Amino acid sequence: MAKLYHVPLSPFCRKVRLSLAEKKIECELIEERYWEEHPDFHRRNPARKVPILRIDGRTLPESAAICEYLEEKYPEPPLMPRSAEGRYEVRRLVSWFDDKFHHEVTSKLLYERVNKKMMGAGFPDSGNVKSGAKAIKYHLDYMAWLLDHRRWLAGDVMTLADFAAAAHLSSLDYISDVDWHRSDVVKDWYAKIKSRPAFRSILADQVPGFLPPKHYSDLDF
Amino acid sequence: MAKLYHVPLSPFCRKVRLSLAEKKIECELIEERYWEEHPDFHRRNPARKVPILRIDGRTLPESAAICEYLEEKYPEPPLMPRSAEGRYEVRRLVSWFDDKFHHEVTSKLLYERVNKKMMGAGFPDSGNVKSGAKAIKYHLDYMAWLLDHRRWLAGDVMTLADFAAAAHLSSLDYISDVDWHRSDVVKDWYAKIKSRPAFRSILADQVPGFLPPKHYSDLDF
Repeated sequence: MAKLYHVPLSPFCRKVRLSLAEKKIECELIEERYWEEHPDFHRRNPARKVPILRIDGRTLPESAAICEYLEEKYPEPPLMPRSAEGRYEVRRLVSWFDDKFHHEVTSKLLYERVNKKMMGAGFPDSGNVKSGAKAIKYHLDYMAWLLDHRRWLAGDVMTLADFAAAAHLSSLDYISDVDWHRSDVVKDWYAKIKSRPAFRSILADQVPGFLPPKHYSDLDF
Repeated sequence: MAKLYHVPLSPFCRKVRLSLAEKKIECELIEERYWEEHPDFHRRNPARKVPILRIDGRTLPESAAICEYLEEKYPEPPLMPRSAEGRYEVRRLVSWFDDKFHHEVTSKLLYERVNKKMMGAGFPDSGNVKSGAKAIKYHLDYMAWLLDHRRWLAGDVMTLADFAAAAHLSSLDYISDVDWHRSDVVKDWYAKIKSRPAFRSILADQVPGFLPPKHYSDLDF
């Protein structure tokens, strides 16, 4: 069976968990406290981060490359469209969330509030928290603009782009940092993706010391 | 004809320029001073960065997604192997350079020494420069370790992984920040890639206010 070394609230890990679950690839989840500098982990992973997937006798770091690999080796159900144009749009949006959204929002809110505490790295920087709380509004508006024109973020079918976005938003929702009143289309989109069986393990996550809000696991939030 | 909005020393733009040139796609280069907040540019590019490629009647931001698009629409010559395992390794290494190397090295050296000056954002932070100069050694050693086992970075054929790495190193070489004496295999690899016709336009780049060292454009450096 495949093994995923992960951290529960990491959006990069959640994106891979969603891909695995959607493709019905059975996988054991192993929590990896990568900041504790475990020598075994460094041997497995010179980049020193999660997720790491053990599958097909190989050890794979790097969430974007993992998802493309799963797409090529386990094509059903597809999480990318067929056309080069459609695939471009999926990849553009995955980068949007994993690069820009991560830099402007996730690293400013989740890392300040949760990772710092878990790693014993001090208190949240209020300037960062403020800047993340401001930036998420602009990103939710961008998503609303996309979803006004499309059923899913990258087009008419659900893709890796939706998983990348939902991975970030679900981690932020765990710490009550998403204002679901801001846009009805974004809320509807999240309700659709949240109700998929692939999402169940994410809604069941519990991080000691951090209690999620009631609506976090509620499909009717 | 295609148009690429770019900045000469940006490694993300250089990676796309190398892909275009290797695939013999004619392309006009247009310098885009994206930090000057030109309203037209923001309409083209909500992510506010370069490169942006105009091709096939479309406007494409995001260098990794652009390179995958070019690979699918213009497959000859291929810059990715065929097997899922080989493609995974290319993507892992492209992310390694564009994410980890960029964060630890390029942003600490090139951005401090060049971008700050161009953007009128003050003097280099000496702590960052020191940290970048230290980190590049470890990355050159990692490349040497890969190249001890392989002809090219991701395996036996030249791929996008080599272009991503060469894009970062060539930009840093322009400001004399690469110690080519550190590893013979890395120097030999760079000499091979530097001598390709696709590399010519990069070696001809001139940035006002920054004179490259003599060896920058010398194929026999």
